Amino acid sequence: MNMPPFFARTPEPPYYVVIFTSRRTAADAGYGETARRMLELAAAQPGFLGVESVRDGDGQGITVSYWASAEAIAAWKANIEHRVAQDEGRHTWYEHYEVRVARVERAYGQNSPG
Amino acid sequence: MNMPPFFARTPEPPYYVVIFTSRRTAADAGYGETARRMLELAAAQPGFLGVESVRDGDGQGITVSYWASAEAIAAWKANIEHRVAQDEGRHTWYEHYEVRVARVERAYGQNSPG
Repeated sequence: MNMPPFFARTPEPPYYVVIFTSRRTAADAGYGETARRMLELAAAQPGFLGVESVRDGDGQGITVSYWASAEAIAAWKANIEHRVAQDEGRHTWYEHYEVRVARVERAYGQNSPG
Repeated sequence: MNMPPFFARTPEPPYYVVIFTSRRTAADAGYGETARRMLELAAAQPGFLGVESVRDGDGQGITVSYWASAEAIAAWKANIEHRVAQDEGRHTWYEHYEVRVARVERAYGQNSPG
């Protein structure tokens, strides 16, 4: 798949966001391939609006994915292929992670001072 | 100041988050010093709960800051020293950025499958 541009094009709020902050282990074990597959799979889910993701040279990463509703997030979390990847992430790829689900109430960009 | 650890220690939801996604220009022009000062200043604001920040080698960054209330975020946005930095960011340091304000409804970490 082609990599999407960095900035997600989201609609007017309200919508939902999953904030996933993580620190990677040194273990590779198929991480890159699975990460790409999960991005592809997420983008195909109902209610997916976009994603922005950064990881630095120290293995610290933040991924924010945007969703139309809390229900869309719950369905994605329960997706069976995603659940297998979550287990692998918990045990192999991530030294630590935190997940936060939030409702976006306001949004503005560089050309709209908000 | 000492750099804080990567993961923020936030209370039980609900609380608020500002998601700042950005791409840097090549311009330095005091960026690092101002970024450090803003972190220090933010941490001293009423209602500040924590911050997590990552920037990759391509200049793409995500900073999530956590706040006790929408009012605390509004006060921080209006802080005069912060406003000067926001102007400089808009004109000099960022090629593009997006800001989203959201209400955190659920949160879980590696040791609590949520």
